[in-house]
Amino acid sequence: MNILIIGAAGMIGRKLTRALIEKGEINGKPVERMVLADIMQPPAPDFPGAVETLEADLSQPDIAERLISSRPDLIFHLAAIVSGEAEANFEKGYRVNLDGTLSLFEAIRKAGLEQPYTPRLVFTSSLAVFGSPLPDVIGDTQCLTPLTSYGTQKAISELLLADYSRKGFLDGIGIRLPTISIRPGKPNKAASSFFSSILREPLIGEEAVLPVSESVRHWFASPRAAISFLLHAAEIDTSPLGQQRSITMPGLSATVGDQIAALRRVAGDAAVKLIRREPNAAVAEIIDGWPRSFSAQRGEALGFKAESSFDDIIRVHIEDELENAVPERV
Amino acid sequence: MNILIIGAAGMIGRKLTRALIEKGEINGKPVERMVLADIMQPPAPDFPGAVETLEADLSQPDIAERLISSRPDLIFHLAAIVSGEAEANFEKGYRVNLDGTLSLFEAIRKAGLEQPYTPRLVFTSSLAVFGSPLPDVIGDTQCLTPLTSYGTQKAISELLLADYSRKGFLDGIGIRLPTISIRPGKPNKAASSFFSSILREPLIGEEAVLPVSESVRHWFASPRAAISFLLHAAEIDTSPLGQQRSITMPGLSATVGDQIAALRRVAGDAAVKLIRREPNAAVAEIIDGWPRSFSAQRGEALGFKAESSFDDIIRVHIEDELENAVPERV
Repeated sequence: MNILIIGAAGMIGRKLTRALIEKGEINGKPVERMVLADIMQPPAPDFPGAVETLEADLSQPDIAERLISSRPDLIFHLAAIVSGEAEANFEKGYRVNLDGTLSLFEAIRKAGLEQPYTPRLVFTSSLAVFGSPLPDVIGDTQCLTPLTSYGTQKAISELLLADYSRKGFLDGIGIRLPTISIRPGKPNKAASSFFSSILREPLIGEEAVLPVSESVRHWFASPRAAISFLLHAAEIDTSPLGQQRSITMPGLSATVGDQIAALRRVAGDAAVKLIRREPNAAVAEIIDGWPRSFSAQRGEALGFKAESSFDDIIRVHIEDELENAVPERV
Repeated sequence: MNILIIGAAGMIGRKLTRALIEKGEINGKPVERMVLADIMQPPAPDFPGAVETLEADLSQPDIAERLISSRPDLIFHLAAIVSGEAEANFEKGYRVNLDGTLSLFEAIRKAGLEQPYTPRLVFTSSLAVFGSPLPDVIGDTQCLTPLTSYGTQKAISELLLADYSRKGFLDGIGIRLPTISIRPGKPNKAASSFFSSILREPLIGEEAVLPVSESVRHWFASPRAAISFLLHAAEIDTSPLGQQRSITMPGLSATVGDQIAALRRVAGDAAVKLIRREPNAAVAEIIDGWPRSFSAQRGEALGFKAESSFDDIIRVHIEDELENAVPERV
C-alpha cells in the first residue's frame, strides 16, 4: 500500500500516521510507502518503509498532481481551514476548503485518464454541513443546510465526492466527525475548546474555565475513536453506500453535567473543583446552534464504533496522553 | 436599471429580454441599459436604451469581470450546459456550470471590495438537484441529493448562492423551474422533448411521437410562466428568504393523459390523432426517476404563480407562438 495523508501535521494526521504504522496493513496489504503532506512540514515518523514528508499547499497550482504522482492507493484528505478562520477569511476558506479539494479530485481524475486509477479517498467532513433549525436527534437523512462558509465548503465537497465517485473517478467516502474530546494540547480560541479543557486541565491538576451551563448537550468522540473511523473508512466495502457517500459518524451525546460526573467518577472531587464557572453569553449563543445528538444508525450499521460513556472517553485520554497515569483520587 | 442577462441567446433568455423591454421598469425604476451575453452572440433587441450584445464564455478568464464592469443592478444567470451534455462531457459541464458560476460570484464580490456593490442575482436552478427516492409530492424541505453531474453542479451553485448572499456579497435568489411545456421550436434529443412535441406538432397539423404511457406524471409550466417567475424574482423582497435562497417554482402536475385531454378540448380529435404511440423503454426509464409533483407552497406564498390547467398552457402557446391562430376543430 502507498498511502497519502494530506493534513498530516495536525493532531488527527499525526495520530493517524502512527496508527497506520502500528497496524502495518490495510485489508491485508502491507503499508509500504507513506506520503505525508501539510501546509507545514509534517514530522518524519519512525517507519521502516519509504516515507516522504512534504510542505505543500493543496490549493496552489500543480501541488495536487505532485502529491498523487506516486499514484497512492489510499488517500486521506484531512486538510482544512477551520470554521472560525474560514468565516473570518472568506477567500482563504474557499481557496483551501473548496479549490484545494477540487484540485485533488481533478488531479486524481486526470491521472485516471492516462491509465486506470481509482484510489480510495477518505474525506473528513463536518457536522457543520447541518444548520438550524435542527431536531433534538438528527437522523441520517437530515438535509445539508449549512449556515457558515466552512459548512458550505464541506457540503459542496460532499456533493463533489459523490459525483466523482459515481463517475468512477475515485472511490470516495466522507466521514462527519463528532466534536473530538478530549483533544490533547492547550486550550484554544475555538468556541468548543472548553468541551476538552474542563476535563483535560483538571486531570493534570490545573484549573479550567466552563463558560456555559451544565445542561448544554453536544456530540462527542475521542481522538482514538476518530482514528478508528478513518481506518475503518479506508477498509470497508463502499458498494453499499450508493450515491450517499458521506456518513455521520457515531458518537456520544452528553451534557456538560455528564462530562463533569464522569470526571468525578474517574478522578475524584478534587479534579472537579478545578473547574471554574465563568458564564460567557457569546460562547453560549454559538453553542446553542450546534447539534445535540445524532442517531447515526447508518454509520453503526457500517461498523463504525464510538465510546458509549464519558468515563471511557476520559480513560482513553489517560491511556493515550497521560501515559496511563491516573490522577490520585482525593 | 442596468440589467445583465447571461444566457441571453437561449429560448428563455430571448423571451426574458423582450419581456423586460415591454415591462420597461423593475420596481418602478426604468430599464435604461441592457447587457446581453451568451456563448453565441445574442440578437440585438429592439430597445431604445443602451444595449450591448456580447459573445462571451463565462468560464474563461476575465469574462465575468468584463460582464459586470458596468456594475449592473440586476443580473440574470441563465447560462448552463444542459443535463445530457453535462453528463456526457464531465469537464465541460463543471467548467461552465460550476467554474462559470463561481467566476461570476467572485467577480461580483471583488467589485464590491472597491466600492459597495450588491446586485440582485437571479439564478435558474433545476429540479435535478433532487434525486430518487422521491415522494409522490415533493415538499419545500426536500434534501438536495442530485444523481447527475448537472444536478450536482446546480446544487453546489445553490449552496454558493446562499453563502455569498449570507455574507452580503450579492442578493441572490435561485428558482427551480418546472419542465417547460410547450417549448417553441423543433423536437430535440432531450428525453423530455415529447412533453412539448405531442402538443406543439399537432397544433400545426404535424405528427408527433409519444414514447411513454399516458399515466406518466410530471411537473410543468409554460414559457410565459417561466418569464413571470424570473421577473418576480427580480422584484421581490428577499429578506424573508433567510438562508434558504433557492425556491421550487409552482407548476402544474399533470399526466400525459391530462395533456392529451386538454389538446382534445382546445384543438379537437383531429389534433389528438396526430399523436403516434411508439413506446421507448429507454425514455420511459429515464422519466421514471423524475419528480411527479411538488407542493411548492413556499414559492406560492412568495407570489410566484403558474398555470392551473393544461388547457391554459396550450392557450398560452397559441397566443404567444402561433399568433393566436387556434387550429380549426374537426
